[in-house]
Amino acid sequence: MSNLDLFSGVLDEKDILKSDEVIDPFLSDWRGTIKGKAQAVLCPRSTMQVSKILKIADENNLVLVPQGGNTGLVGGGIPDRSGKAFVLCLRRMNQVRTFSCKNRSMTVEAGCILGDLKNLALENELYFPLNLAARGSCTVGGNLSTNAGGINVLKYGSARDLCLGIEVVLLGGEILNLLAPLRKDNTGYDLKQIFIGAEGTLGIITAASLKLFSLPNFRVTALVGIPDLSTGLDLLRLLQKISNDQVEAFEIMSKSLFDVVFKHFPDINKPFDNTSELLILMEVSSSQTRLIDQKIGDQVPLYTLMEDFLSEALEKNMVSDVILAYDDFQREQLWKIRENAAEAQKRESSPVNTDISVTCDSLQEFYNLATDAVRSMCSKTRICCYGHMGDGNLHFNLIEQDGGDKNWDVKSIQLTKLVYDALYQVNGSISAEHGIGSMKMEQLKFVKDGTSLSIMANLKRLFDPKDLLNPGKVIDYRLY
Amino acid sequence: MSNLDLFSGVLDEKDILKSDEVIDPFLSDWRGTIKGKAQAVLCPRSTMQVSKILKIADENNLVLVPQGGNTGLVGGGIPDRSGKAFVLCLRRMNQVRTFSCKNRSMTVEAGCILGDLKNLALENELYFPLNLAARGSCTVGGNLSTNAGGINVLKYGSARDLCLGIEVVLLGGEILNLLAPLRKDNTGYDLKQIFIGAEGTLGIITAASLKLFSLPNFRVTALVGIPDLSTGLDLLRLLQKISNDQVEAFEIMSKSLFDVVFKHFPDINKPFDNTSELLILMEVSSSQTRLIDQKIGDQVPLYTLMEDFLSEALEKNMVSDVILAYDDFQREQLWKIRENAAEAQKRESSPVNTDISVTCDSLQEFYNLATDAVRSMCSKTRICCYGHMGDGNLHFNLIEQDGGDKNWDVKSIQLTKLVYDALYQVNGSISAEHGIGSMKMEQLKFVKDGTSLSIMANLKRLFDPKDLLNPGKVIDYRLY
Repeated sequence: MSNLDLFSGVLDEKDILKSDEVIDPFLSDWRGTIKGKAQAVLCPRSTMQVSKILKIADENNLVLVPQGGNTGLVGGGIPDRSGKAFVLCLRRMNQVRTFSCKNRSMTVEAGCILGDLKNLALENELYFPLNLAARGSCTVGGNLSTNAGGINVLKYGSARDLCLGIEVVLLGGEILNLLAPLRKDNTGYDLKQIFIGAEGTLGIITAASLKLFSLPNFRVTALVGIPDLSTGLDLLRLLQKISNDQVEAFEIMSKSLFDVVFKHFPDINKPFDNTSELLILMEVSSSQTRLIDQKIGDQVPLYTLMEDFLSEALEKNMVSDVILAYDDFQREQLWKIRENAAEAQKRESSPVNTDISVTCDSLQEFYNLATDAVRSMCSKTRICCYGHMGDGNLHFNLIEQDGGDKNWDVKSIQLTKLVYDALYQVNGSISAEHGIGSMKMEQLKFVKDGTSLSIMANLKRLFDPKDLLNPGKVIDYRLY
Repeated sequence: MSNLDLFSGVLDEKDILKSDEVIDPFLSDWRGTIKGKAQAVLCPRSTMQVSKILKIADENNLVLVPQGGNTGLVGGGIPDRSGKAFVLCLRRMNQVRTFSCKNRSMTVEAGCILGDLKNLALENELYFPLNLAARGSCTVGGNLSTNAGGINVLKYGSARDLCLGIEVVLLGGEILNLLAPLRKDNTGYDLKQIFIGAEGTLGIITAASLKLFSLPNFRVTALVGIPDLSTGLDLLRLLQKISNDQVEAFEIMSKSLFDVVFKHFPDINKPFDNTSELLILMEVSSSQTRLIDQKIGDQVPLYTLMEDFLSEALEKNMVSDVILAYDDFQREQLWKIRENAAEAQKRESSPVNTDISVTCDSLQEFYNLATDAVRSMCSKTRICCYGHMGDGNLHFNLIEQDGGDKNWDVKSIQLTKLVYDALYQVNGSISAEHGIGSMKMEQLKFVKDGTSLSIMANLKRLFDPKDLLNPGKVIDYRLY
């Protein structure tokens, strides 16, 4: 009996994908830098089917690589090149099990698309805040397995913070049902936390109960130039204070990023002729109807708040260029710059991508250290920095100099090392929101202390003693 | 060498408490219902000392019972009656290691008193939201070890949600330093989550990095009577919507609780002559200066918001009695009722205390089921219900009938069973915010599924294979 036949009693024929051309999209990542092989792609439609698959995998020592929308950036959902693995695609588990306005929660299956869930909340005049550029294709199972971040962590937290409960299938097929959408439950160890952010290496998340919030029905968005990160941080703290922590986004972007975005997306409106070296895209949101209804003069107060804030900032030379979006079209134009950052950069040749985080105390120091290090080696390398400044999360990325750089392959490796050296000096994290996957697994050994690695290895041993769940990702327990 | 001598090389003589009268307060809980014994109370002043103590305990098979402010309500910090244990009191580890306005975080030792930390934040015009009646004596180590809740979970989350990192000492003395106050860090499994809420059974939390928020410099507080919980919930959702999720507290209280509070605290102002059967104490807070500065007529907008809200609620018969606090004194008087609830009830003879949570969808159903069950057995038993309604967290407590009830000892046991039967019908939690401790350990076996219990037992085995860390609390791993 071939391994494939083992699953034919569990899944419909149409839910087992075999032909090379059909499974090809499941075997490489969005950036196209990682490529793997697999025996087949299994597409279960129920928790029971996942349970049976994990029983079969356990009994027959088959490797499973769980995958959601395949939008990950560190190869977490891509199998290795051995061709032994089965991709376990959760996308066909996409039912909304319950939706409660009263409890402000929804229980949904792992394969639900983030954007669809955001729309479902919206239709019910509620808000599911998680927001990333991949929202149209990423799944909530993947979001939780990687503890996804995105643009409004500042106000709402990461995927972990938005989760009330999960359903997990363990190796062997046991179903761990922790879905009760309770706001408070202190009955022993909080087991869901172990699986959130574990990238499918300890169990397969098949469903989740998620928190919902009041729908912000009003937003004010501005783009400003800033002299340095430290001033940007001062602006953030001030805006948080006067807006009562309602700053939903505070995104940093560098001039080089702007240039790259407008090069590849010429249709986006260019907000300034001359762009400052650093810019902030900020947004304050509110569901407070009073803030909207009670106009003062011709203005809604949230605009007045932002206008006063920016006027003061201009007077104090904390900002240079200022654009305030007065309608949805203007707002979208500003957001298009930010949301196409990753895509624009991907179109450049072999960019260096990072996903680092530091404390806000070290933000300016890291930026100076990393910039100086890069400049000292290559004065023309483009520093394409963007990210979630309030979280201390920078994608401090590098692109070869304008017009090409023939030694880029060698240089980019050396430059990457310089950026991480700067990061280690300020005790930052090598993965703020993308996870470890296969890409950062080697690096993890050097940045985590022995005690942490040993506990991680023990957890892996506990839940997956035969290394069948997403092996080669996050941690190799045999080393500890 | 006696066991006590083992520690004399580690701690100063004055930090090892031995005499019965000195250690007596460490050996019983606040309610006085649980009483234990110990060889001594060890009071380390540094992480290094805790590490040495855990090394000695491991080498000599000594039992340690960690304790913070000893304000727990389920016996989690009290040793058993064998007299073998050492109480490990963390209260003398009370240094603030770092405080950063820029990073909006503070790194503090486990023994810091919650109230002191709240004041420290305040002095820096920031806010540490965790708020419970015991704030004057509970410690942050205890708060995290029990994942404490309290009155503003609705807006800010539980202790877990407020924590960026922890330092834990493991059995054997290894120090796990996860203190980096990063907002985002997805480098492998989130190990801190395992220890938060574990009640000191897996390791000893010695320090923590905590999130800080904008200081709400304005609050509007109201007390209203409501016809039922379902209407109360509708009110909450409406208030959350119009206030942009700025409802900081939404506390339910029953008439019987009011009567008991005013009986034992006659100095508190009685807000109504005739009290509704159910009341809500609600508070909306804001740091939004615009909301305060821009008076409309003579009013600040936050008052107007609440006044409009309550007028509408009155018109729709959603509320009966209404009191709006217009100054700090009035506000304090209202809060005194709620904050003295536990103390007032404690002064009654053998009350039944619960700490249950249900989804908001089941809140009314649970209340009806439990009330009917209690009433069907004892028509005069006083239902002293209070709690955090927005979290579905009710302290559905019972006191013997006014004037005494001679069969109360027997009845109270039967009544407790009826309340839990109602809870099980709606899949609620037996511990919303107080934890399991020793008091609910037996019950846990019946409410948790086998898979969860087995994972919990495995975690305990992993970190404490000899059951030396707070044994007899949370879970007996030998059973699974």
